[in-house]
Amino acid sequence: MDLIFLGTSSGTPTKARNVSGVALLEDSGKGWYLIDCGEATQHQLLHTPLTLHGLRAIFITHVHGDHCYGLPGLLASAGMARRQEPLDIIAPRAIEAWVRATLDMSQSWLPYELRFHTTESFDGWCSSQMRVEAIALSHRVPSWGYSFTESRPDPSLDADKLDRDGVPRGPLWGALMRGHDIEHEGRTLRSEHYLLFSRAPRRVVIAGDNDQPELLREACQGAQLLVHEATYTQAIAEAGKADFGHSTAAQVAAFAASVQLPHLVLTHFSARYQGAPNRGLSMDDIRVEAAEHFSANLILAEDLLRIRLDKQGQLQWVERLGKDAREAAVSRPDGS
Amino acid sequence: MDLIFLGTSSGTPTKARNVSGVALLEDSGKGWYLIDCGEATQHQLLHTPLTLHGLRAIFITHVHGDHCYGLPGLLASAGMARRQEPLDIIAPRAIEAWVRATLDMSQSWLPYELRFHTTESFDGWCSSQMRVEAIALSHRVPSWGYSFTESRPDPSLDADKLDRDGVPRGPLWGALMRGHDIEHEGRTLRSEHYLLFSRAPRRVVIAGDNDQPELLREACQGAQLLVHEATYTQAIAEAGKADFGHSTAAQVAAFAASVQLPHLVLTHFSARYQGAPNRGLSMDDIRVEAAEHFSANLILAEDLLRIRLDKQGQLQWVERLGKDAREAAVSRPDGS
Repeated sequence: MDLIFLGTSSGTPTKARNVSGVALLEDSGKGWYLIDCGEATQHQLLHTPLTLHGLRAIFITHVHGDHCYGLPGLLASAGMARRQEPLDIIAPRAIEAWVRATLDMSQSWLPYELRFHTTESFDGWCSSQMRVEAIALSHRVPSWGYSFTESRPDPSLDADKLDRDGVPRGPLWGALMRGHDIEHEGRTLRSEHYLLFSRAPRRVVIAGDNDQPELLREACQGAQLLVHEATYTQAIAEAGKADFGHSTAAQVAAFAASVQLPHLVLTHFSARYQGAPNRGLSMDDIRVEAAEHFSANLILAEDLLRIRLDKQGQLQWVERLGKDAREAAVSRPDGS
Repeated sequence: MDLIFLGTSSGTPTKARNVSGVALLEDSGKGWYLIDCGEATQHQLLHTPLTLHGLRAIFITHVHGDHCYGLPGLLASAGMARRQEPLDIIAPRAIEAWVRATLDMSQSWLPYELRFHTTESFDGWCSSQMRVEAIALSHRVPSWGYSFTESRPDPSLDADKLDRDGVPRGPLWGALMRGHDIEHEGRTLRSEHYLLFSRAPRRVVIAGDNDQPELLREACQGAQLLVHEATYTQAIAEAGKADFGHSTAAQVAAFAASVQLPHLVLTHFSARYQGAPNRGLSMDDIRVEAAEHFSANLILAEDLLRIRLDKQGQLQWVERLGKDAREAAVSRPDGS
C-alpha cells in the first residue's frame, strides 16, 4: 500500500504545493484510489507512474473547491485517454449534480460510466483489494474521512476444508483463491469461507478537513497510518488568525499518540508556513509542535512524496517524484 | 503590450504545456487581461509577476473545458487574496450560470463582484487602456476571438484647442489628460476631444478554437499580431486523424500571409507534436509547415514565454518565465 501525495497545501496552490489530493496504490502498483481532487490533480499525476485507466475509484471528503475543482478536468482527460471502465465516485451529494452539470455545460461526453455513491448515505465500498468506510468529521461543511482496509491480506487456500467439503482440486480452487464464489454440485461456495490470512489487514485512514480528530478514534483502531490535516500551529489558532474548522498540529499529534498510532502524516498546510526556515513561520513550526505530542513516526507530507506501508506495517520512504525531486529536502522516516 | 502564454496544449495538459490561457499586459506591467482560463491557469500565474489584484477582465473564447475549467479556482483564490475590485468576465452565456453554481456548490463566497457580459450579445468592452471587440469564429461549439486595441496610444493634450475653448490650465487639464470628462462652466468637455495621439494604436487579436481563419480578416486589419490555434498539421488533418473544428498550421499561416500580418503566434498544439524532434511527430512539423506559407515573424508559443509588442509594432522576446526556463529551447524571434 503506497501513498503518493498529489497536493499538500490548504486553500490555494503555492509554487511548491498543490491543493488537496492523495493517491493510494494497491500492492500491484497498477490499481489506485484517489482521495480528493483539487484543481490540477491531473497535472500532478503526469509526474507519477499512475494512469487514469488504473484509477479504481475517487473519494471526495467535502465540497470545498480545493478538494474537488479538479474533478471535471480529470474525468474529461480520462475520456480523452479512452477510458471505458465505469468509474465509482464516492462524494457528498452536491458533487454529482455539479460534475454532471459541468460536463454538460462544456459539452464533454465521457466514453465511460460515472457511478456516484453519496457519502451522506454511504455504507461502505469494496474492490477485490480494499474495503472502504466513511467517517463523519467536523468542519464548516459536512466532511468525511475514509478508512482503507485490505480486504484479502495474502490469502492462501484452506486445503483441508476444501477436501472435507469435497471440492476437487483444479479450476474451482483457483476461482476461490482469486476471490470468486463458485457453484459446485448445486451449492454456492463462498470464497471467503475457504481463505486463510496469515496476517492482519493493513489499514490507512485519510481524513478530510476536520477540527475534531477524536471523531477518528474508532476508525484508527487497528490502523497503522493516519493522514490528517494540520493547517495551523496552536499559536496561530490561539491568536485568532486561523479559519474555523481546522486542526492544529498539536491537536492531531496528541490524538494520534492517544490511539497509539505508529505512523502519522500531516498535510494541508497553510501557505504561511511554506517559506524558508528562519524567515518567519516555517514548516519547522508544524514539525516541532507535532513532535512535542507524538513520539512515533511523524511525516510532514510534501507534493509527489511516495511512501509505502509494507506488509509488516512498517513505513518506508520510496521516492520523491517529479522534476524537483533532486532539490527536495524531504525528511526520510529512516533519518537518511 | 506584453503577452505571457500560460497554456499552449490542446485538450489535455502535458508535462511541458498546460491547457489554454494567455495573459495580455498593459504597458505599466500591472494591469492585465486573461484570455481563456483552462484548469491550473492560476498555478501558471504563480510563475509570473502577475497578481489577481491586477487582473482587469477575463475573456473566455468558448465553453470547452480546456478553456474554462480553471475559472472557479482562480476566482476563489482571488477572493482568498482579498480582492475587492469588481471583475468583468466576458464569456459565452452558459459560463455565468456554471461559475455561479460552482461557487455555490463549494460554498465559496467572493468578497468582490463578478460582472458577467455575454459574448453572444457583446458590443465591446473598454478599460482606460484597451478597447476589446469579439469576433465570431467557427468551431464545434460557438467560439469567439477577441481583438485588443490600445484606446489611448501615448496621448498628449491639444493645448491650442484647450486655450481656444477657454479651459484654464491646472487640474482640469490633468483630468482630461487622464481620460476623464469634465464639467466646466456648465458644459461637459469630453477628454477624447482634447487628446492628440502621436502614433496608431497597437492591436492584438487572440482567437479561440476555429477552423476558418478567414473569419478574422476584418479584425486583422491594422493588427500587428494574431494568436491562433494550429492544433494539427495538414498531414494529420488529411489522414482523417484530427478532431473537427480546428485549424492546421498551413491554414493559419496562409491566412496570416494574405492579410500581411507582421507577427503570427501559433498555439494550442495537439499532444502528438510535443515529443522530442526526430522521434515521430514534433513541433518542427508545425513550424516547417507554417513557414512554407508565412515568411514574416512566426512564433510557436511555449508555456511561460513572454513577448512584447513595442510601440513601434516590433515584437521582442522578453523572457521565458518559470523554473524550467534554463532548459527551455525557445526560438527567439531575433534568432539568438
